[in-house]
Amino acid sequence: MFTFLRKANYYETDQMGIVHHSNYIRWFEEARVALMDDMGLPLQKLEAAGIVIPVLRVECAYKSPVRFDETLELRVKVAEYNGFHFRILYEGVNRTTGKLSVAGESEHCFTTKDMRPVRLKNRFPAWHALFAGLLEKE
Amino acid sequence: MFTFLRKANYYETDQMGIVHHSNYIRWFEEARVALMDDMGLPLQKLEAAGIVIPVLRVECAYKSPVRFDETLELRVKVAEYNGFHFRILYEGVNRTTGKLSVAGESEHCFTTKDMRPVRLKNRFPAWHALFAGLLEKE
Amino acid sequence: MFTFLRKANYYETDQMGIVHHSNYIRWFEEARVALMDDMGLPLQKLEAAGIVIPVLRVECAYKSPVRFDETLELRVKVAEYNGFHFRILYEGVNRTTGKLSVAGESEHCFTTKDMRPVRLKNRFPAWHALFAGLLEKE
Amino acid sequence: MFTFLRKANYYETDQMGIVHHSNYIRWFEEARVALMDDMGLPLQKLEAAGIVIPVLRVECAYKSPVRFDETLELRVKVAEYNGFHFRILYEGVNRTTGKLSVAGESEHCFTTKDMRPVRLKNRFPAWHALFAGLLEKE
Repeated sequence: MFTFLRKANYYETDQMGIVHHSNYIRWFEEARVALMDDMGLPLQKLEAAGIVIPVLRVECAYKSPVRFDETLELRVKVAEYNGFHFRILYEGVNRTTGKLSVAGESEHCFTTKDMRPVRLKNRFPAWHALFAGLLEKE
Repeated sequence: MFTFLRKANYYETDQMGIVHHSNYIRWFEEARVALMDDMGLPLQKLEAAGIVIPVLRVECAYKSPVRFDETLELRVKVAEYNGFHFRILYEGVNRTTGKLSVAGESEHCFTTKDMRPVRLKNRFPAWHALFAGLLEKE
Repeated sequence: MFTFLRKANYYETDQMGIVHHSNYIRWFEEARVALMDDMGLPLQKLEAAGIVIPVLRVECAYKSPVRFDETLELRVKVAEYNGFHFRILYEGVNRTTGKLSVAGESEHCFTTKDMRPVRLKNRFPAWHALFAGLLEKE
Repeated sequence: MFTFLRKANYYETDQMGIVHHSNYIRWFEEARVALMDDMGLPLQKLEAAGIVIPVLRVECAYKSPVRFDETLELRVKVAEYNGFHFRILYEGVNRTTGKLSVAGESEHCFTTKDMRPVRLKNRFPAWHALFAGLLEKE
């Protein structure tokens, strides 16, 4: 499990006085990027090797709001990985209220910049091992 | 079925050269707002009556990209409605490529501004009829 | 003078209940893009020729707010152009309130994708003529 | 002088491969909020007292880009303050390239939530002293 903290910015609120729901999808991305930095496989290293990680699907359930300047504690884990496709789970707790705020997931794969699939397992076995390790740790 | 057209803005692209995935969640909202305008029940009318429509859940599958200045044709329909909770389906076709770009859904309910549930059916029967009508039309 | 209409989206409001000030900078870009489409020189045509138009400076004064679903009428004109560098003025009137909402400007030049300057006047005289024409019309 | 560090997120890049110019306006806001936290006068304290701080004007010159995952070091200082109106200067250096990236300023005043001016000097002398102190320190 990887934990990512994110304070809500003023410009991320909407006229309901809470963080707009679309922003959590962006925070999920921030958390994924931080997770990959943390595992020693930053996105830039992949992009330098010609690999991008498109989002195939994203989902988010909204349980309770986060307000300006409150901090969301996002717990992130890799739930599935098969050498090509992976799925990440997110659970966000509002540190101010202590309540579960969001629960979501995203699915991804590895592709070249022109969107052809890349099997990490075959082409980049060391990176594959890193991802597989994340899964085993759970 | 309601159709909403949306041209991609430059600032909505990312360094992959395509619309960032988070923006479709915002476009879904634009389409919902336009749908409610179209059905004669604009969001402002609801907000003036003290009712907001939080997003309970959102989901989006990404099939093919939309690029700068391309137009997404979003087809929107109300798939479920029970007087309190509703679910909307979205299908987005890229008009330039003719390909399915995104498919998603969102779930909502009616609440007061401090997040207490409002049964439209009981409190605002005329508005309830409008929503129920949308469902029957499918 | 070119006029561009833009309705405010829900996700563009902040907890003050008004459009967040950063969004007008994005609307200026939308208006520029529409202006260039209108003059027959869409941004994509330039990008296909390897030319981008970075923003050198932007400025915006906020006079009165725009709220959700209100429409801003942005009046755009090219105030300076010397074959390489140009300056655009923006004036935005809130159509609902009739009040001046924002007044701003942006400065730009033409460069290659790796940011080396391009003199439109020398390299693309037909496009230069289009820009120069915009200026003369004022 | 107050220093604020900000790493660029993936979703803040555009198809030029650099942070979209509109985001710096948002980062200026983040830096202001952090500055006010740092001086012991968080925005929430002001909002709890019914005071908001609208942006009257913003300006930004773009000198060199920031790319994904690079960190901008924003140096912020209060340049003018007269008990009601204030002006803040920003200078952003890209920590990866060492280059000046942006230079800008913003102007603000204190108002009630319905936009009537508030003279901090008269109504909240302790908060006025904090602001005046910031200015003197320069």
